[in-house]
Amino acid sequence: MSNAATQVPYKIYLREDQMPKAWYNLRADMKTKPAPLLNPGTGKPMTEQELSAVFCQKLARQELDNDTTYVPIPEKILNFYKMYRPSPLVRAYCLEKKLNTPARIFYKFEGNNTSGSHKLNSAIAQAYYAKQQGLKGVTTETGAGQWGTALSMACAYLGLDCRVYMVKVSYAQKPYRREVMRTYGAQVIPSPSDTTAVGREILSRNPDTSGSLGCAISEAVEASRAETGYRYVLGSVLNQVLLHQSVIGLETKAALDEYGIRPDLIIGCAGGGSNLGGLIAPFMAERLRGESDCRFLAVEPASCPSLTRGVFAYDFTDTGRICPMAKMYTLGSDFIPAPNHAGGLRYHGMSPILSQLYHDEYLEAVAVPQREVFQAAEAFARTEGILPAPESSHAIKTAIDEALRCRETGEAKNIVFGLTGTGYFDLAAYQRFHDGTLTDSIPSDEDLARSLEKLPKL
Amino acid sequence: MSNAATQVPYKIYLREDQMPKAWYNLRADMKTKPAPLLNPGTGKPMTEQELSAVFCQKLARQELDNDTTYVPIPEKILNFYKMYRPSPLVRAYCLEKKLNTPARIFYKFEGNNTSGSHKLNSAIAQAYYAKQQGLKGVTTETGAGQWGTALSMACAYLGLDCRVYMVKVSYAQKPYRREVMRTYGAQVIPSPSDTTAVGREILSRNPDTSGSLGCAISEAVEASRAETGYRYVLGSVLNQVLLHQSVIGLETKAALDEYGIRPDLIIGCAGGGSNLGGLIAPFMAERLRGESDCRFLAVEPASCPSLTRGVFAYDFTDTGRICPMAKMYTLGSDFIPAPNHAGGLRYHGMSPILSQLYHDEYLEAVAVPQREVFQAAEAFARTEGILPAPESSHAIKTAIDEALRCRETGEAKNIVFGLTGTGYFDLAAYQRFHDGTLTDSIPSDEDLARSLEKLPKL
Repeated sequence: MSNAATQVPYKIYLREDQMPKAWYNLRADMKTKPAPLLNPGTGKPMTEQELSAVFCQKLARQELDNDTTYVPIPEKILNFYKMYRPSPLVRAYCLEKKLNTPARIFYKFEGNNTSGSHKLNSAIAQAYYAKQQGLKGVTTETGAGQWGTALSMACAYLGLDCRVYMVKVSYAQKPYRREVMRTYGAQVIPSPSDTTAVGREILSRNPDTSGSLGCAISEAVEASRAETGYRYVLGSVLNQVLLHQSVIGLETKAALDEYGIRPDLIIGCAGGGSNLGGLIAPFMAERLRGESDCRFLAVEPASCPSLTRGVFAYDFTDTGRICPMAKMYTLGSDFIPAPNHAGGLRYHGMSPILSQLYHDEYLEAVAVPQREVFQAAEAFARTEGILPAPESSHAIKTAIDEALRCRETGEAKNIVFGLTGTGYFDLAAYQRFHDGTLTDSIPSDEDLARSLEKLPKL
Repeated sequence: MSNAATQVPYKIYLREDQMPKAWYNLRADMKTKPAPLLNPGTGKPMTEQELSAVFCQKLARQELDNDTTYVPIPEKILNFYKMYRPSPLVRAYCLEKKLNTPARIFYKFEGNNTSGSHKLNSAIAQAYYAKQQGLKGVTTETGAGQWGTALSMACAYLGLDCRVYMVKVSYAQKPYRREVMRTYGAQVIPSPSDTTAVGREILSRNPDTSGSLGCAISEAVEASRAETGYRYVLGSVLNQVLLHQSVIGLETKAALDEYGIRPDLIIGCAGGGSNLGGLIAPFMAERLRGESDCRFLAVEPASCPSLTRGVFAYDFTDTGRICPMAKMYTLGSDFIPAPNHAGGLRYHGMSPILSQLYHDEYLEAVAVPQREVFQAAEAFARTEGILPAPESSHAIKTAIDEALRCRETGEAKNIVFGLTGTGYFDLAAYQRFHDGTLTDSIPSDEDLARSLEKLPKL
């Protein structure tokens, strides 16, 4: 535990010339690398050539690169970053005071851009490489809508066509998300849809499904193959996405270093793992090298608890089973969580990088129920001013719990959490919370066992 | 015209210790002071004592103070400012490139807080003085919902009761605005309502009215008088509000000064005038002292053109005629604009300070139609990333026009405009724009003449 300088401002903004010029690839420092993606047909590791049929070439290479420590950020991406980055690292003075805790709480706020979240960091990178390869456009899925919005913005900036399969429950709950994407020129399709074979198959089995990220992924991949000049892009889970999101952690570290602060605990919500993986990357490097004993804590919704109640095994990454298989903590690719309001945390699996770190006990995890998350969100909004996204509020809830624990023990820990985004498009959920109609939907052991029965046999 | 340094970053953030410690009172430097508010009963100038029946004591004093140049910002307000300020001054490199203009374009972005606009700067000040006076709560009106949200946030922070009369058309178009205010604990009532005598009277004459700011003001003032321990607060028009909003201009000037940049033209949208008045304040001071020939341009909607088509005269500030009368450019207090989608620009009058400056030819004005504003908004969103509020987009539209003019003349002007807020709650309007159902609603000369007939005879 280190002493925080007393002169820390409310918000630390790096200067433009202090912004990271390269992404950091955590895999290069991991003793046990994440297991390779497997071809769902052959069961063998995916080659760069095979991956290039799904992703752009450069991204396929980044996906497989376990060795390069620093990947230079292309200048055009750096310039795009300058439009909305650096994001502020905020010292939560008001929250600390309200909780009467000796802990120092910091949050890295990624919501200060129109997409409303950190997703833009990888969207611009993926769109850039697609453009560089001379492609016409990209297809993708979106859960909460943050990734789809981010990709639309990036594609509008670069002049790329953009098609977004949006999980049906989010499409219904967030009508205005579609208008934002439309403002940026994207085409948005509720998933499952009848525009793909995968979607039609799922609809025939379960016409009333509220959809899932796994299903939307299958549709977007199928759509990217139906036309030449298109590739599929994904907003989380993949190694390449965590690489791009390392900009969050690098900025956080530079800001903390400037004030001589070393974090004792870093907390992030985890759906596919992109925010958490990016936030912790440079701090985890120190831990892996034995230079720090900082703790890392993933927070997932009790309704979709892949780390805390899933198994560590190879599984399909999509419902349609057409994508590469990944070794990860998973609830089974058929698992469809109850329609909770953190659409970005409804994925059945978890980033292979984070899964490996969790398995190797470098990363801890907790699952929290939905109503407590909204209670924390409202308290945070009233205290710190920012209306948080339900996803981000999972981290808020846990940071508050940890700060209250410090009040018991008297420890002046430095707690850092990721505030991934804003809740402007989640007000239907807030309304249900205010009206008392929000429920906690926790899957039974039987539900999970049923879904895990269908893991691939390798 | 001065040379901009080449090293200007995309975003200039002042350090916390560079933030203004005092508001600047432009009236102290005006040769012709704005005309005093008049008691609507007696026709005589309002005294501090009379004003204190409507506003808190300290705010009544600020309203009348034409002499003090700098008013220290209380520490509690400074600390609240640190939660979301300084706001960035952005160099619009991407927009300049897209327009192929030699002009340098800067915008002061006030949307980086949960209220989504600059309104928070005055909301916290007014709530602070109410709390300091030991009041129980405040009442107010809101048009676009930005002021109501800002006041809710400020009241939640200080523990004050907050009641918001929301113009009916905005209440209908922006259902989620209510939920944000509710998250911050406020009570929101669509106006006109049957909770006040003024509201009931208006509804009996015109049951289908979409409401107006003037009417909502009357209701909020009546409600504040119906209970002890309450005062009325207003988000624009008043001298005190422009005083608080000077923080926008002071930060802008400090940021520009750091890079040796002197603006040639400053542009802002103008509804009641709070943003524009705050943005231009320190620059207008230089102009009034003959130290600058910077131009200042107010942009109003063609549907509610108080400066460009109104008259400079004493008028009622509210529809119910219970508030002090002000000398200002006005369309008549009975004027109800067509339901355009810039709810924050639907007020029939204009800040007495700005009105006087316009009358004395220090300030210019243009009116722009709604569809061109949305075209500019969409182009801006795709180029600079930020989804702008329709109000702010009036300034964008005019800044683009001026930058294109520079392309014709080859002038490398320094253009600064106020980007007052974000459009997350205006997506119903964007949808209408995309669907082609948005119309320009420009009042006829006959409409205006009819409404101006009812000016008070003094």
